[in-house]
This record gives sequence, C-alpha cells and structure tokens, in this order.
Amino acid sequence: MAVASVSTITSASPIGWQDAIERGFERASRTLRNITGMQVVSEKARVEDGRITEYLVTMQVIFVLEEPPA
Amino acid sequence: MAVASVSTITSASPIGWQDAIERGFERASRTLRNITGMQVVSEKARVEDGRITEYLVTMQVIFVLEEPPA
Amino acid sequence: MAVASVSTITSASPIGWQDAIERGFERASRTLRNITGMQVVSEKARVEDGRITEYLVTMQVIFVLEEPPA
Amino acid sequence: MAVASVSTITSASPIGWQDAIERGFERASRTLRNITGMQVVSEKARVEDGRITEYLVTMQVIFVLEEPPA
Amino acid sequence: MAVASVSTITSASPIGWQDAIERGFERASRTLRNITGMQVVSEKARVEDGRITEYLVTMQVIFVLEEPPA
Amino acid sequence: MAVASVSTITSASPIGWQDAIERGFERASRTLRNITGMQVVSEKARVEDGRITEYLVTMQVIFVLEEPPA
Amino acid sequence: MAVASVSTITSASPIGWQDAIERGFERASRTLRNITGMQVVSEKARVEDGRITEYLVTMQVIFVLEEPPA
Amino acid sequence: MAVASVSTITSASPIGWQDAIERGFERASRTLRNITGMQVVSEKARVEDGRITEYLVTMQVIFVLEEPPA
Amino acid sequence: MAVASVSTITSASPIGWQDAIERGFERASRTLRNITGMQVVSEKARVEDGRITEYLVTMQVIFVLEEPPA
Amino acid sequence: MAVASVSTITSASPIGWQDAIERGFERASRTLRNITGMQVVSEKARVEDGRITEYLVTMQVIFVLEEPPA
Amino acid sequence: MAVASVSTITSASPIGWQDAIERGFERASRTLRNITGMQVVSEKARVEDGRITEYLVTMQVIFVLEEPPA
Amino acid sequence: MAVASVSTITSASPIGWQDAIERGFERASRTLRNITGMQVVSEKARVEDGRITEYLVTMQVIFVLEEPPA
Repeated sequence: MAVASVSTITSASPIGWQDAIERGFERASRTLRNITGMQVVSEKARVEDGRITEYLVTMQVIFVLEEPPA
Repeated sequence: MAVASVSTITSASPIGWQDAIERGFERASRTLRNITGMQVVSEKARVEDGRITEYLVTMQVIFVLEEPPA
Repeated sequence: MAVASVSTITSASPIGWQDAIERGFERASRTLRNITGMQVVSEKARVEDGRITEYLVTMQVIFVLEEPPA
Repeated sequence: MAVASVSTITSASPIGWQDAIERGFERASRTLRNITGMQVVSEKARVEDGRITEYLVTMQVIFVLEEPPA
Repeated sequence: MAVASVSTITSASPIGWQDAIERGFERASRTLRNITGMQVVSEKARVEDGRITEYLVTMQVIFVLEEPPA
Repeated sequence: MAVASVSTITSASPIGWQDAIERGFERASRTLRNITGMQVVSEKARVEDGRITEYLVTMQVIFVLEEPPA
Repeated sequence: MAVASVSTITSASPIGWQDAIERGFERASRTLRNITGMQVVSEKARVEDGRITEYLVTMQVIFVLEEPPA
Repeated sequence: MAVASVSTITSASPIGWQDAIERGFERASRTLRNITGMQVVSEKARVEDGRITEYLVTMQVIFVLEEPPA
Repeated sequence: MAVASVSTITSASPIGWQDAIERGFERASRTLRNITGMQVVSEKARVEDGRITEYLVTMQVIFVLEEPPA
Repeated sequence: MAVASVSTITSASPIGWQDAIERGFERASRTLRNITGMQVVSEKARVEDGRITEYLVTMQVIFVLEEPPA
Repeated sequence: MAVASVSTITSASPIGWQDAIERGFERASRTLRNITGMQVVSEKARVEDGRITEYLVTMQVIFVLEEPPA
Repeated sequence: MAVASVSTITSASPIGWQDAIERGFERASRTLRNITGMQVVSEKARVEDGRITEYLVTMQVIFVLEEPPA
C-alpha cells in the first residue's frame, strides 16, 4: 500500500539526544502502526545552573495509512 | 511524560487575527488533550469589495501524547 | 466552522506523479472527512536498472475539524 | 475571472503594526481594484531615543487582473 | 534591452494545473508585453465534497521593461 | 556613525505578545544604548491545563556600536 | 507618505555586476518615481566559449506609491 | 552498496516539462551508472513572442558510487 | 525574569561533535551566566590527508539578561 | 591551491548515523583525493516492523580540484 | 583556542558596498579582539531623489572568545 | 544539446572576492568544458591579526554534459 502520513514528534531525555530519539521513536511505535521512516529535524537542550537538564529532539515519523473498515 | 506531537491548524475569524488564534486554540483544546504550546506560522486575510472579510491564521499546536491502553 | 488541520501525506505510483497525487488524495479522502484543499510539496522518483519504478509525491491535505461529541 | 497578481507592499505607522497594516491596505485599495487577499510578511520598527517612532509592515496583496481593453 | 521585471501571478482552473498555468500565462501575455520567461512557484487545489474543484498555480513571469516616452 | 550590531532577544509575558514585545524592548533599552530598530522573528505560547500561561516572542534588536575609549 | 511597493528587477551587463546594478537602477528610475531603496538578490553570469559574456543581477526596488488623482 | 552521490542536472525541451525531465533522466543514465532516484527541483520556461519556446527543469539525480579499481 | 538573549557560538574538537558541543557549552558557561537553553545549528568537519582532524559545531546559546546596576 | 569542489553524498548503515557518516566519508576518500572538509546535511532512518533497519545520512564533501595534465 | 562567537553587524557608506564592508570590519576590529572570519549576508541601498545616498551591508563577524580572568 | 550539470565550487584569493571568482571560474574552465553559466552563492573571508588574509567565494557552475563515446 503506497500512501503514508508524516507526523512531527518532539521528545525529551535527561541523558542525551540519542536517548531522546529512541524514546520518541518507541513512543510513536506504540501509537502509529506501520512506521516506515523517520528524520531528525532539530536538536535542542534545556539548561539549569550551568548543566544540561533535558535533551530535546524534534523528528518527523512516516507511517503507512491503514485501510479504514469498509 | 516526555513525548509530544506537533499539529498544524488553520483558523479563521471575521473579527481579527487575535480572534482567529483564540478560536483555533479553543477548537484544538476540545480535540487534543494536554496541549503544552503553540506557535503562529502565518497571518493572512481574505478580501471582498475592498474590505477584509476573513482573518486567517496558520499555527502549530504541541500536545503530549497519551499512553494507549495496554 | 472555521478551524482546519493540515496533514502531510506521501504517496507513490508506478505510473506517474499525477497518478500518485490522485492515489494519495483518494486515500486521504477515505480517512479524513471534509477536505478543503491540498498542496504539492515535492516530486521524487525511485529508479532501478535505469528506469523509474516508482513516482513519489509529498503533499499537504487541509481538512475541517469535526466537532467531538459533547 | 481566475488570474490574479501578487504585489509586495511596505507600510509605516507611528501608532502600531495594526495601524500600519490598515494604512497599507487602504492605500493599496485606492490603486489596485479587485483585491482578494493579503498576507503579513514581516513586522519591524524604527527606534529613536529609546522609543519606537515608526512601526513598519511588509505585506503581500493579491488582486484579480482586469481585462485590458480589446 | 537588458532590464526586466519579475511579476508574481496566481491562476486557477477547473481542469488541472497545466491548464491553470496556460490560463495564467495567456492572461499575463495580454497585459505584459515582452515576456521572456516564467517559473512555477507552487501548485495547490481547492477541494469540495471529496473532489478537486479548482487547481491553483502561483508562478513568476519575467518581462522586459519598455522604454517610457521621452 | 554608521556601524550597528544585531542582537537576538527572547521575551515572555503572561498577558500577550504585545506585552512581551514591550517588556523585551524595555529590557533591551536598559542594556543596549542607541537602539535604532527591531524586528519580530517569532510568536509562540506555553500552554497549561488548556490555557495560555506565557506568551513568548523572539525579536532582533539593532543598536549602534559606541566608540571604545581610545 | 508611508506606503511603498517592492518590485523585483533583473538586469544584465557585458561589463560586470556593478554595471548591471547601475543599469537596472537607472532603468527603474525612469519608470518608477520616488524610489527609496533597493537590495541585491542574486548575482549570476552567462558564459560562452569559456568567457563570461553577460553579468546578470536580480534586485528588489522599493518605491513610494503616489496618490491616484481623486 | 550503501554510499551514493547526488548530482544536480538542468534539462530543456521544446515540448513540455515532462519531456524535459525524461530527456534529462535519459541523458544522465548514459553517464551515471546505478541511478537509484531523482527529484524535481524547479520548473521554468523561456518565452519568445508570447509563446513558450523552451521548458526548463532542474532536478537532482542520486546514483550509487562504484568501487574504484584496487 | 522573562527576557533572554540568543548568542551564536562555534566550537571545535579533535575528538568528535559531541565533545565540540561540550567544549563550546562549557566555554560559554564561563562567560554567560544564567544559560537556559541551547540548540545545535550545524555539524561540520575539517579533513587532512584523508582523516578528520577537527570536528566543528555551530550552536545557539540562550541566556537570561541580568539587570544592569541602577 | 585555492579552488575546491563541493559534492553531496548519501550514505547508509545498519548500526547508526555515526557509522553511516564514517562509511560515506571512507567511501568518498577512495574516489576523491584531497578532501578538506565535510558537513552533515540530514539524518534519516528507514523503519521496518517497528525497528530502525537503516540509518541514512546526507553530507557535503569538499575536495580540492587537482590540476589536469597540461 | 577552539570556541568562537558569531556577531551580526550592519554597516553603511556613502561610497559603495565595498567601503561599507571595510568600515564595518574596521569598526568591529576595534571592539572585538581575535576576529577570525566574516561573511556578507545582504547588500542594500537607500535612495533619495533618484540617487543612491547610502550603501548598507549586513555581515557576520566570527571572533574567538577570550578567557575571562580566573 | 539541452542537458547540463550544476557543480558547486569554492575558491579563495588573497586580493578580493572578484579575484576569487575569476580564479575559481578559470580553474573550473580547465576541467569542465562547455560552461554556460555561473552564480555566486556566498562571500566569506578569513581574518588574522585584524586583517583579511583570504577572500572565499562559493559559486555554482553550470556546464553542458558531453556525449559519452558510443
């Protein structure tokens, strides 16, 4: 089936951007079936008292649209 | 919970852009639970007979994804 | 009702971009009620053995948000 | 009639951006007949002695092209 | 003559984008003499009741400026 | 003196974007002497429990560089 | 009078980009009264037999709109 | 083999953009082995005496890099 | 305190981009008090004799403006 | 030697983006002598059955042009 | 020392863009020690009575951050 | 023959951007036959001890693809 939808996701992690990407991807996988691709859009961080406290990622997730029941 | 989704909304008002933003935000709040942020993307207007008849706003709404039932 | 949502769709066809747009639009129509507009974002193709095997289109579909039940 | 032209306008006001938009729109209406839409492109300001003295707006105005005499 | 101007045009057609481009180009030719080039900027569509009712094209038209009478 | 610097500022307000712009401009005026212009770059908002709690503005401030003491 | 229009011009010269800018500006001055500013958008060149034969400039010209007769 | 190169091609046709794309693609296929994809970047046209005389396409062609002899 | 400034930093490391980000962030922390966020803008590398000798990062650092003494 | 060329490369890896960058860089080094720099342009991934199966990187490689034999 | 900051400067000259760049660069050199690079961002001009009265340049200046006293 | 390729070149000169463009163009002409056009993409400079030591230009060169031997 050839039609897919693109969804924009933001995800955060206290450890790093790689972990934020994995969290976001795992979370998206639980809601969106048939994911076929993803793309990193931006990498940011929140800082407090001179230390990074949260790594933030925005990414696009592509998933095939399932057929609605007839 | 650290994963959120970004949704693009367009909204219109006969009064002004501020009203269009409020309408769009209120409408989005009824469908999307857990909105955490928004951003204005563009401000346009439709014109008829030399007068603005509709103020149009495109905005992005960010909302936390809820856990699907296990 | 003046509030609409913008959804990004990718679609593919073995015949051409026009066919990919029609497939994507038809498929979106089955899921999204009240579509009011669309826009072509990009036109790509996959190539194998010197021949185009798949025409790929990314497009944005605009649809009016329906009222959730009270 | 389905063909329109897009014109870029800059407008200024000592009061605010909203007033600059209205001045620009009113001025464009006197020259361009059949305006069907507009879009705000940028909002700037000129500052003197720590106070904003001029609000500047750039906007695009869309107007239907009239038939030239045969 | 080496100086030209760039004008942005939007055009619509009930048939397709190719027809919208031709309509816009033909209409521009009646007003602007000495067109030397054009470029497609965007392709959109208006949709009603699940069917595309209007194909919309934005394009830039380049035309040589004629000498004003001395 | 013809040389100026461009500084990017973000500002927040619980009331609205207009207030956020004024706060940011007033705050910038206390640090940067000789401001000559500004430009709004983006307008966002933070949302909690379905209500906007903070209006966020990013803007560029232009100020003339003063001569360093000889 | 605070309302101005922005026009995009392309100009060519066999000598160099500076000359192309001057030609385009001089030509625009003969058609558009009350020019208040300009901006260089792109610098290209046409090449034949390994030599640049034409320097091409695209620029935006800003001019104050004159009042139409009452 | 997982490494590919992206090459930008411009192509022209007296018939239409579709023909220009096919000409450019066929020409690229004769020089670049192992093409795996392409993308349309822009569609322009050259105009003379009120008629389009040349359809111009810019596109990106992706091709797998072959191993150089050891 | 609601007003912050955005500063663009470039940083380099012989080890990797992650190390360059940490060096740039640590260096910025020594000069700019009250950093609240950062964003990666670009990742480049310098290469010599077929090996990466320097990883380069451009990033934006956001820091709250301190009150100047009264 | 002061003249260099910029080439766009895409590379894939089953392990991660870092590995994809290294593969692409190593592969480019075998074809292009005198590489002096590179830049990451985009990071994507292909997904199957809920797992990332291929990490995709697009990057630009800069290499000094060698003198052709006289 | 590997950490640098990027500052945006605007400069003006009655003579030409080249002179505006030199003025801006000279002025920046008096305030910012350890400049390592610059980049031209835009070239504009102010026009009065059909003649260019001021050439305006926006440029980015890169300078190494000095160590603050321990 | 209507198919051309676009190549990105960077060039440097100790004298100025104009000289860097000429060097890059002359160098490209020795490798690429049948150049038909070029475009300036960016103008940068490297600075040492408060003086510009190297003017850097990035430009795109367009050249017609020659027929490979049958």
